[in-house]
Amino acid sequence: MKYGIAIFPSKNIQDEANSFRKRYDPHYALIPPHITLKEAFHVEENELKDMVTELKQIANETKPFTININKVSTFAPVTNTIYFKVEPVPALMDLQKKLQEGTLTNNLTHSFVPHITIGQQLMDDEYSDVFGTLKMSKFTFEDTIDRFQLLYQLENESWTVYETFVFGKEFI
Amino acid sequence: MKYGIAIFPSKNIQDEANSFRKRYDPHYALIPPHITLKEAFHVEENELKDMVTELKQIANETKPFTININKVSTFAPVTNTIYFKVEPVPALMDLQKKLQEGTLTNNLTHSFVPHITIGQQLMDDEYSDVFGTLKMSKFTFEDTIDRFQLLYQLENESWTVYETFVFGKEFI
Repeated sequence: MKYGIAIFPSKNIQDEANSFRKRYDPHYALIPPHITLKEAFHVEENELKDMVTELKQIANETKPFTININKVSTFAPVTNTIYFKVEPVPALMDLQKKLQEGTLTNNLTHSFVPHITIGQQLMDDEYSDVFGTLKMSKFTFEDTIDRFQLLYQLENESWTVYETFVFGKEFI
Repeated sequence: MKYGIAIFPSKNIQDEANSFRKRYDPHYALIPPHITLKEAFHVEENELKDMVTELKQIANETKPFTININKVSTFAPVTNTIYFKVEPVPALMDLQKKLQEGTLTNNLTHSFVPHITIGQQLMDDEYSDVFGTLKMSKFTFEDTIDRFQLLYQLENESWTVYETFVFGKEFI
C-alpha cells in the first residue's frame, strides 16, 4: 500500500490555506493542508508493524518545536506551485531527515523545502496573477508542532490517517 | 473547537464506499469513509489534554474486534441516507457507549446504529433508484478494528485527524 508522512498545522493555518486551496489546488479535497515530511512510498503489509515501531522511536526522540510562516513562495519555474514557506528550523529538518534513514526508504527526489501548498497545477497566466497578488500580502503564522501522521492513499488518491505519532508520548 | 470520533475501516472497504460516495454523498470530499462513534461536540482548548488521556484509557481497555458488513441499509423515511450496515457486535457497541460517559459529553441524539454512509441528501427519486439497486446487491466485508481517531473540523466543514488511539497501545 502507498503511505506518506505529514504534519497537519493548527486549524487557523489550515483554514487560511484552504481559503486559497479551494480555488487554486486540485488536491483540495484529497487531504487537509499539510507539510509533507515523506512523499508517497510503498510498504508491504508485513513490514508495517516494524515501520510503526521505528516511527514511534523517532517521535519519542523528537521534542515539540515551533514553526514560523512569514511569506508565500513558489517552486516556479519547476512547477507552478504556490505555498506558505515554512522556515527551515533545525528540529523540522532533522525530523524529515530521520524519516529517510534506517529501515525507512530514502525516497527523496529533491532537497527538502518545508512548505504548505496553497495552489498547484495552475495555468501560467493564472499562476502569475495569483502569485503576483499573494507575494505582496503579509502572512505571519507561528505554530507548535508536537506530532506527525502516517497516512495511506485510497484508490481515489485521497489520504486517510493510519496513525498519529506524538513526540515523547509513544509506547513501544 | 469542534471534535468528532470515528473509525476508518480498511482501504478495501473505503474504496468500495467511495465508489458510491463520489456520486451520492455531498460529504465525499470532507472526510474519508468512516463509522462515526461520536458526533461533533465542542471541546475547549484547556479541556483537550484531559480528554485525550480519557480516550487513551478507553483505547487501552478495548481489545481489537471484528466487524462485518453484509448489506446496504437506509435511514429512510427519517433521512434519505444509504449506508453499509455494520453488524452491532458488543465490542463496538460498548466502545461507542464509553465515548458518551465519564467526563466525555453525552451528545447522543438517537440510538447508535453503526454504519458507513455511502449516500445522503439525495432527492427522493434518486434515492429510490439508488437504494432499489443497492439493496439487491451483495456486499460482504469483514474487518479488524484496532483503533479509533479523534478529529477536528475546519471552517470548510472538512475534518483533520488530531490523534489516533490504538487499542492496548497507548502510553498514559
